[in-house]
Amino acid sequence: MPKQRPPAPDSSRRSEKSRRAIYDAALALVVEVGYPKTTIEGIAARAGVGKQTIYRWWSSKADVLLEAFLDLFAQASREAGEEPYVIPDTGDLAADIKAVLRATVDQLKDPRYAAPSRALAAEGLVDEELGRRCAATLMEPSLQLYADRLRAAQRAGEVRPDIDPRIALEFFISPLAQRWLQHTGPISYEYTDTLVDYALHGLAPR
Amino acid sequence: MPKQRPPAPDSSRRSEKSRRAIYDAALALVVEVGYPKTTIEGIAARAGVGKQTIYRWWSSKADVLLEAFLDLFAQASREAGEEPYVIPDTGDLAADIKAVLRATVDQLKDPRYAAPSRALAAEGLVDEELGRRCAATLMEPSLQLYADRLRAAQRAGEVRPDIDPRIALEFFISPLAQRWLQHTGPISYEYTDTLVDYALHGLAPR
Repeated sequence: MPKQRPPAPDSSRRSEKSRRAIYDAALALVVEVGYPKTTIEGIAARAGVGKQTIYRWWSSKADVLLEAFLDLFAQASREAGEEPYVIPDTGDLAADIKAVLRATVDQLKDPRYAAPSRALAAEGLVDEELGRRCAATLMEPSLQLYADRLRAAQRAGEVRPDIDPRIALEFFISPLAQRWLQHTGPISYEYTDTLVDYALHGLAPR
Repeated sequence: MPKQRPPAPDSSRRSEKSRRAIYDAALALVVEVGYPKTTIEGIAARAGVGKQTIYRWWSSKADVLLEAFLDLFAQASREAGEEPYVIPDTGDLAADIKAVLRATVDQLKDPRYAAPSRALAAEGLVDEELGRRCAATLMEPSLQLYADRLRAAQRAGEVRPDIDPRIALEFFISPLAQRWLQHTGPISYEYTDTLVDYALHGLAPR
């Protein structure tokens, strides 16, 4: 009778562990050596996996990094006690957007998130193809959550029906993004609360 | 009798020519090789001047580049038929800001301006000291023009007195900056006109 084979290693758990090691290696490298010098070989070496393991799951370093970022955002949201990819709808638009922006302020001040985000954003500025992929993959899905929440507010009569939600949402996120990216001003809860109030009520007297 | 010496070369005209060659070389290099690999030596070689000529006027490559940018902005404004560093005050805030933003749209679409601006902004994302210098030297003076125009509008009753102009101005410039830097959407006169209308009148029904 042949010897019984040992139980197959739990390949899904092993895969999950490799996947996480690859994400961590990719994010660390992009901070340390920059995007142009980050390579699949370097990620594999640092993660302690074979190059082929990476190529089995992803077709390029941009793919690895974009997925590592999506995972990082989801993790940051979970740690903040939030559902990733959801903006609450309590029926009070101002309160809901203020809460989400306060969580974003915390995230932007977290170096685990901030350093790789800056490194990727920097490369996206000079590498247009990467910049457009970041916009489509990392940013647009979040922006659509704001657009959806604004559409709900239009149905509830909290936002004027003639407003284009895709433009209006930029009042909530672009000023914060610019202060963070370009150091044009400090970031705080008070600041993001003020953005929401100004955006909803306008600058002109009512 | 000694031979008469030829007239002294016009040293201020020669200086102006060298200065312009140095600016052009600095902007070209930052596009071609990136900020980290741009050196005083490289700028001098490309401009056809001695290294000491550069050190006589500037103390670092960051100084040369920031001044080259200020000159580039001023040139772009002059070519657009505008006074650099002025926002008109015709008594109609919406019209004045729309006009300035339309000129900015043209400038952002001009590759002579766009490529070096992107290269410098990218480096400012990962080099915090440079980022803060760009913010203070290149951006803050322009932002203050918007703040001044908003203060005049407050005195004229066009903007609510409780509004902080330094925050409010970001509704005009940050969405446009983010679309341009991060490719999150197209840029047009219609878009910037819409930003001005939404910012002044607010998203909520009146």
